[in-house]
Amino acid sequence: MTPEAVKRATIEDVARRAGVSRAAVSKVIRGAYGVSASMRERVEAVIEELDYRPLISARGMRGATFTLGMELPDIANQFFARILSGATTALETEPYQLVIAPVDPDHSEGYRALEALADRQVDGLIAVSPRVDPRWLEEMSRRIPIVMLGRHDSSVGYDTVVGDDVSGVGMLMQHLLELGHREIAHLTLDDQHTRQGSGTPHSLRLAAYEATMREAGLESSIQVARCDGGEDSAHQATLRLLASGARPTAIFAAHDELAIGVLSALTQRPDASEISVAGYDNIKQAGHPLIGLTSVDQPGEQMGASVVSLLLERLAGRTDAVHEVATPRLVPRSSTRPRIRTKGVTRS
Amino acid sequence: MTPEAVKRATIEDVARRAGVSRAAVSKVIRGAYGVSASMRERVEAVIEELDYRPLISARGMRGATFTLGMELPDIANQFFARILSGATTALETEPYQLVIAPVDPDHSEGYRALEALADRQVDGLIAVSPRVDPRWLEEMSRRIPIVMLGRHDSSVGYDTVVGDDVSGVGMLMQHLLELGHREIAHLTLDDQHTRQGSGTPHSLRLAAYEATMREAGLESSIQVARCDGGEDSAHQATLRLLASGARPTAIFAAHDELAIGVLSALTQRPDASEISVAGYDNIKQAGHPLIGLTSVDQPGEQMGASVVSLLLERLAGRTDAVHEVATPRLVPRSSTRPRIRTKGVTRS
Repeated sequence: MTPEAVKRATIEDVARRAGVSRAAVSKVIRGAYGVSASMRERVEAVIEELDYRPLISARGMRGATFTLGMELPDIANQFFARILSGATTALETEPYQLVIAPVDPDHSEGYRALEALADRQVDGLIAVSPRVDPRWLEEMSRRIPIVMLGRHDSSVGYDTVVGDDVSGVGMLMQHLLELGHREIAHLTLDDQHTRQGSGTPHSLRLAAYEATMREAGLESSIQVARCDGGEDSAHQATLRLLASGARPTAIFAAHDELAIGVLSALTQRPDASEISVAGYDNIKQAGHPLIGLTSVDQPGEQMGASVVSLLLERLAGRTDAVHEVATPRLVPRSSTRPRIRTKGVTRS
Repeated sequence: MTPEAVKRATIEDVARRAGVSRAAVSKVIRGAYGVSASMRERVEAVIEELDYRPLISARGMRGATFTLGMELPDIANQFFARILSGATTALETEPYQLVIAPVDPDHSEGYRALEALADRQVDGLIAVSPRVDPRWLEEMSRRIPIVMLGRHDSSVGYDTVVGDDVSGVGMLMQHLLELGHREIAHLTLDDQHTRQGSGTPHSLRLAAYEATMREAGLESSIQVARCDGGEDSAHQATLRLLASGARPTAIFAAHDELAIGVLSALTQRPDASEISVAGYDNIKQAGHPLIGLTSVDQPGEQMGASVVSLLLERLAGRTDAVHEVATPRLVPRSSTRPRIRTKGVTRS
């Protein structure tokens, strides 16, 4: 409880022991130009020896805290594990520490976590929650460098990294159509997450689903089911869909976590066991042989690395907005199969 | 890029508008005693109105930052999602923000993340990595309040929250023995994670497995397989175990992520499909009907809430160490079945 109990080495201690000025030590720490290799070596050896660590809040008062903050809407969604793995690997050789502020999805849209990080003087922000207002982010980006992950914004003040959702859904729908499916239902989140023009991945996936159905002459078979998010909610929504009398031969869920909930529900309905199921993201679980979920792979690790590298570029001075689009890839597995034609029943 | 671009309300602005002193505003923010209900209401209304947020690094210079730091060794392990859910729910009505420093499991034992959080002046630390030296934590706990989650330490300077691993393994082994299994193998992590006396959950689970086998007169059937951690590594270790000629009738994996890797490997070995599999933690995935993994439930949400409440108690002045033990519960599912006796082969 007494902060003074263990005495920390100060920058003066390091300067004295290394026989250099305080300013020289500061230069080495900041990785500034104009430091000779021998000076760097000497100072770094003393830093190591004294276990010196700059006090971040002291640094915060006048500039860099060497902290990047990431707001994370749903730690249970395994796609974020892929993003985070890419981000931490990219930071391994950098002097920056990533800190994550988790968002309680039931009680916040991400504002609180982003503000909390900014208040803690992080040097840059990674925003993930799809429901944070782009105007708010533009405003925030005047104070702090921001990269938005996952949402298709045409921002001027911050960067974006997204997957190409339209092409991903296109590949998946093509796959289902080639398997003979016509009554393809789409399970997605509530209206707030899929509002057209909002740039959220789920709004683009929904629009691409509907467009493909129309192009295939299947407009009358368009069927959109909704859930609150999470595996259990998708499970319940699937049971409700089937109870309503709908008989899709395939269900495309807007992300893998939902698709895994659909698979869970179908085990309770032996009469619906022929329904094909597909998801989006290609999380680890999708590839388990007992799950075998067809999905669209988003290169999460690469996207996580991109986010970090864009943020570091901004910290190095870039101010023009960059918008990166990652290419998705179809991964067919056992959960999608050719449509079984039911004898004696005309379905189309 | 210009911090002044958006003008923030200051504590002086709040004091002026509320017609109180700066010290009174500060008291309300800190939740200090001696503030009347009406004063609190008035000040909080103005704080809301002006969207005032104390600048954390300014606070850091003289005390509380209202930040709790958590070091997280493996975000891909879904048990941490349960812990985190409990911790964030417990903090919902508190003025503290949780920030998480992820640990790259390949390149760090948790020290770097914990030091990074302490350097960022968090008010309290939640340590999770089982390999951080208890002596180091004791030393650190003289500077900052710490709660260690998951490891059985007899600390004096910090608190611990653990599951009762011995009783959990006891229930699970009893279940397997009652199903008729005798050749029960244990899959765990490498030696560094299971060293006796280290207090790690995996060392206790291994010891409890071996003790139960001995008590059941099955000492000669003790078989311990090792892997590096993660589903893929467990998958490979299972294939190696079977290739070695071992024929366990049940495999107890030290946590669910490993057990799910075992299940994956067994799908490649139709000759081994009768092997029962059990895990530990009861992560979400274990309960999926296509996985159906028997597991030992640890109350992760409750443990996450306990960690937060112990840390808040320390911030309120408690200095004696508290050691909490959560009670586990067996959750039998389809992955464990009665042993099938192989005709013509004597196994014991």
